[in-house]
Amino acid sequence: MTDKQQSNLNVDALFLGPKSENSVFFKEMVGYAVSEHMHWRTDFHPEDPALVTPVEQHAPDFRQTLYRTEGILRQLSSKLKNTSVPWFSPRYLGHMNADTLMVSNLAYVMTMMYNPNNCAHEASPTTTGLEIEAGNDLCRMFGYDPKRAWGHITSGGTVANYEGVWVARNLKTMPLAIAQHEKARDLVAGMSERELLNMRPAAILDLTDELKKRGLFEEVRALSCRGAGVKPATLGKILVPQSKHYSWMKAMDVLGIGQDMIVPLPVDENYRTDVARMREIVFELIEQGSPILAVVSVVGTTEEGSIDRVDEVIKLRAECEARHGVSFYVHVDAAYGGYVRSMFLDEQDRFMEYDALIARYRADGIVPDGVVWPKRAVYDGFKAMEEADSITVDPHKVGYVPYSAGAICMKDKRIVDLVSYHAAYVFEEVAEEADTEAQVVLGSSIMEGSKAGATAAAVWAAHRLVPLNISGYGRVIARGIVAADWFARRLASAPPFVIGERRFEVRPVMHPDFHMVNFTFKEIGNGSLEDHNRLNKRMYEICSYASGRTYANDFLTSSTSLSVEEYGHAPLHYVLERGFSRAEWDEVESVYILRAAVMTHCLAKPDDFDAYWDELREVFTAKLRQIVDMEEKENALFNSPLVPA
Amino acid sequence: MTDKQQSNLNVDALFLGPKSENSVFFKEMVGYAVSEHMHWRTDFHPEDPALVTPVEQHAPDFRQTLYRTEGILRQLSSKLKNTSVPWFSPRYLGHMNADTLMVSNLAYVMTMMYNPNNCAHEASPTTTGLEIEAGNDLCRMFGYDPKRAWGHITSGGTVANYEGVWVARNLKTMPLAIAQHEKARDLVAGMSERELLNMRPAAILDLTDELKKRGLFEEVRALSCRGAGVKPATLGKILVPQSKHYSWMKAMDVLGIGQDMIVPLPVDENYRTDVARMREIVFELIEQGSPILAVVSVVGTTEEGSIDRVDEVIKLRAECEARHGVSFYVHVDAAYGGYVRSMFLDEQDRFMEYDALIARYRADGIVPDGVVWPKRAVYDGFKAMEEADSITVDPHKVGYVPYSAGAICMKDKRIVDLVSYHAAYVFEEVAEEADTEAQVVLGSSIMEGSKAGATAAAVWAAHRLVPLNISGYGRVIARGIVAADWFARRLASAPPFVIGERRFEVRPVMHPDFHMVNFTFKEIGNGSLEDHNRLNKRMYEICSYASGRTYANDFLTSSTSLSVEEYGHAPLHYVLERGFSRAEWDEVESVYILRAAVMTHCLAKPDDFDAYWDELREVFTAKLRQIVDMEEKENALFNSPLVPA
Repeated sequence: MTDKQQSNLNVDALFLGPKSENSVFFKEMVGYAVSEHMHWRTDFHPEDPALVTPVEQHAPDFRQTLYRTEGILRQLSSKLKNTSVPWFSPRYLGHMNADTLMVSNLAYVMTMMYNPNNCAHEASPTTTGLEIEAGNDLCRMFGYDPKRAWGHITSGGTVANYEGVWVARNLKTMPLAIAQHEKARDLVAGMSERELLNMRPAAILDLTDELKKRGLFEEVRALSCRGAGVKPATLGKILVPQSKHYSWMKAMDVLGIGQDMIVPLPVDENYRTDVARMREIVFELIEQGSPILAVVSVVGTTEEGSIDRVDEVIKLRAECEARHGVSFYVHVDAAYGGYVRSMFLDEQDRFMEYDALIARYRADGIVPDGVVWPKRAVYDGFKAMEEADSITVDPHKVGYVPYSAGAICMKDKRIVDLVSYHAAYVFEEVAEEADTEAQVVLGSSIMEGSKAGATAAAVWAAHRLVPLNISGYGRVIARGIVAADWFARRLASAPPFVIGERRFEVRPVMHPDFHMVNFTFKEIGNGSLEDHNRLNKRMYEICSYASGRTYANDFLTSSTSLSVEEYGHAPLHYVLERGFSRAEWDEVESVYILRAAVMTHCLAKPDDFDAYWDELREVFTAKLRQIVDMEEKENALFNSPLVPA
Repeated sequence: MTDKQQSNLNVDALFLGPKSENSVFFKEMVGYAVSEHMHWRTDFHPEDPALVTPVEQHAPDFRQTLYRTEGILRQLSSKLKNTSVPWFSPRYLGHMNADTLMVSNLAYVMTMMYNPNNCAHEASPTTTGLEIEAGNDLCRMFGYDPKRAWGHITSGGTVANYEGVWVARNLKTMPLAIAQHEKARDLVAGMSERELLNMRPAAILDLTDELKKRGLFEEVRALSCRGAGVKPATLGKILVPQSKHYSWMKAMDVLGIGQDMIVPLPVDENYRTDVARMREIVFELIEQGSPILAVVSVVGTTEEGSIDRVDEVIKLRAECEARHGVSFYVHVDAAYGGYVRSMFLDEQDRFMEYDALIARYRADGIVPDGVVWPKRAVYDGFKAMEEADSITVDPHKVGYVPYSAGAICMKDKRIVDLVSYHAAYVFEEVAEEADTEAQVVLGSSIMEGSKAGATAAAVWAAHRLVPLNISGYGRVIARGIVAADWFARRLASAPPFVIGERRFEVRPVMHPDFHMVNFTFKEIGNGSLEDHNRLNKRMYEICSYASGRTYANDFLTSSTSLSVEEYGHAPLHYVLERGFSRAEWDEVESVYILRAAVMTHCLAKPDDFDAYWDELREVFTAKLRQIVDMEEKENALFNSPLVPA
């Protein structure tokens, strides 16, 4: 595909659209997908008779079974229509949900008809290959060498994170296992236990090569925690941002490491890992002699979309290796933000220089003048991802693929051997000339077993249509980033909303790293953080599914609480800025915020955005009026003589 | 729904059919599913303008993007047609794959348009409820009390098995945690460590109730392996059938327990766990003072479809509790066979008496005269499942639902608290009047995170149309069981295939417990097991995807090796029966077999089956001729003067 063709990608033509604008095309393609498969069935051994005859098809119980099928589908349709959330509309700015790519939905439907299972190549001769291709696409996006790296699809980011910890954990226990094996221990001769626990990941993998040469790999691997079970004390700590997604707590539990091994890393006022504190903590651990199993960076925090300084983690590791002989595994949880790396790549998958990037954004109208993106720190964070040992990324988030499609990429595919398995009935040894990689790797090399080949097809098709670079996903993702920038700026300068004698101000919590805009409403004159939290919680309740039928709502968003427990004093900056006292913060220890992932592709034109914003101001005014009315009714009721004191 | 209506279920009307016999209905319903959603979009705020205009839709780059979308779908279609496996045809008898229920495919497509994520109720207000309903259906099928039990959907049986071990593992470490906590230890006063490690699962759960009353539950839970990590030595052994699916090896690794803790249970000549040996092993472990974490039974082994004597495991546990004060957790891996339990349930979900069951099978024509099913041992095994602590079951296997849909059911939902989590942004505290269960349980209570709500809808719709009892799934599953019985009987009595001067006999390995028929071809007069294995491997190679395009093939099957390593001497019975010597077996230690899961619904009529079998005999003859020709060519080449000696 030439650059010319790629630059012709029209983002609006990728989605069904908020008004089903592309319904004609979509319907035609659904019909195509289904018909093609039906004919495939009919044409398989045309000489075989139909085993159900038209006469039988008209029998009463046959018709009745079809009617019942239809009845259940009608029931399902009414349930879905009644309570589903309209992700497709720009009126929805909440979770990381938006319209999904037509090509992925269609590829899913088409492939589901064939029902492949990517656990085993034999059960998915077509889609195993598509999964490997899609995995390679992702590796390339992260700057990994696809020949040395390995990526595959998971059911979601949670499982991908588990898998990252799984390989890191097993890798970490290999040096001690080597030291235990009498025919292998010369490989680590003279090394102290401390040194064995602090080896560089790449150095351990080099040792596994040597073990394979000696024919000892499987024996030694059986001595690692895979065979012997976990001994938490010899694993070391796992450093995870304090704002950690709860999947990290689950991961420590599931993997048998224990949550006690987590060391939370404080976040700074940008809700990124605080680099200075991270350095202190790492150096303290080294001084105490405590090994570090892994440091986890988050690229796109779930609640703020903040981008960790992966570059600082990589730098810190190099420093620890050089100065202290201590290394650790680096995993990046980019479930949310991973696809954003495509915004930095040219058509040859090269990570562009900062100035050239901005120039290209302007020239191609991807990021217009006035929108300052990316921040330099964000740029540096994304760039350094290529140095991480493994990366989680969710196609079902910013890949605009339907649920559920997560993925994990590993920089060095040798690490897979530490967790791989084979089963005779799943992985037959077929002709050597075939693509052996496709036949061996899945099921036996991943955490999960059965998995829909249709998911692989959906991701594969998305990547074929929308390249993972500036002119493909770059264009799609930019739509949200630009609209988020505009949204945050409008919020930052919006005049107060006047409801009777009360006035309310809206402000963003910070200017986003990515496309998630957090904001709150504050009644002017209110000094109580608790009242402020109640106001915003109410706003959420009437602007979400909690209000009842979302379908009748004018604006839908999500929310969260930023508390001391999860964020330390990072939110204090905003709390003070909004005019609350430090004492209020120390008392309440939490600020309730509205949370809007601006993923929509529909607000790209300045005029459309202006109209949207005008409408939104009216919606906000009406919502605030509704809250004021509710409060007045409550007060009236409270003061009513009918209510016993 | 009345019994009358249920008995009107027509199995042929549930599937698209091998010749797409129900294509008109299916297409109409796909159109319905897609149109309904499209109108839902259009009707959401009708006052909102379309953000893409028809003029823009006719711009060259817009059209080009649609053409490229179509091109990618055409490419995908040709890939799928070229190498997919025709599960839908009765010519495919291999893995546990067959046609899938129309209603599930349609429900999936319909729901995918709304793209719910069952991780959080907020992201799936409709489908979280459907998942809970589907989980309750499964609990009821297993004889669990849905009010006390808990079931949910996983990506597959592998993850469901992980989850079973996860809860068992965390439960097991609670008594020691209680003994560590100074305000709780009185609950286990006077108990030795040995006693703490051998407590009954239900007794531990009762203690957690007491901890909750005291407000200590979370503190004590943090002292269990969830917080402190795994200490394999205090966990005890996990007893798994020797024929263990490799997911059990993965489970021990992933959960940090270590594969060394697995104790393999030998299988008998029916490929079920050998009850006598199991009893010996359990009593030996008790004598040695080694605790037992869990015993795993398999209902539907992956390679033989054998049904373990769950009743014997339950009986053994009661015996150990009474005589030795020792208990253990019982998990049933019924990924494959779980849905078969519906064959034993009347319309009120009562497990029928044996004689009444057989009478009903005959009266309703579900299992015809001459087909002896179930064997009494199989009946007893299924009945006892209601006593197991947890059960894995895969809707995407014998639930006839498309990939990927697994599930786990737990007898006592209190166990979920040992592994549950909450995240502020996922689980908002909404109005108490709502169905709080639906809002709390998923994401925070399961191993996985994001998951397609469409999967839940597909399973839910299947259960609504096809009840989980004798007149619903019973009728569907019986189709395969009956055809498998006929197939096994024909194989058992088939006259030899004559190819020139050579004669080949086909025989089933055993009469199946369920619907999986294993069989081999043997050249009459051949005494070499190695030659026998080569013959059957060749047969597999030319009757599978390994032959190249499956589409042009006349018969497709799967295969496996039954080796001493995985089966001990269980296969010896068959090997001797086929006329090989014990010495041959001791030399080769493995027998290569063909493996046919007879899941098809298309061979239910005796006449159709007869015609099918006649055709199949011709196919087998042609295949054997092909092998004989190949061998002759190889021999000629080997003896040719052109080949250097």
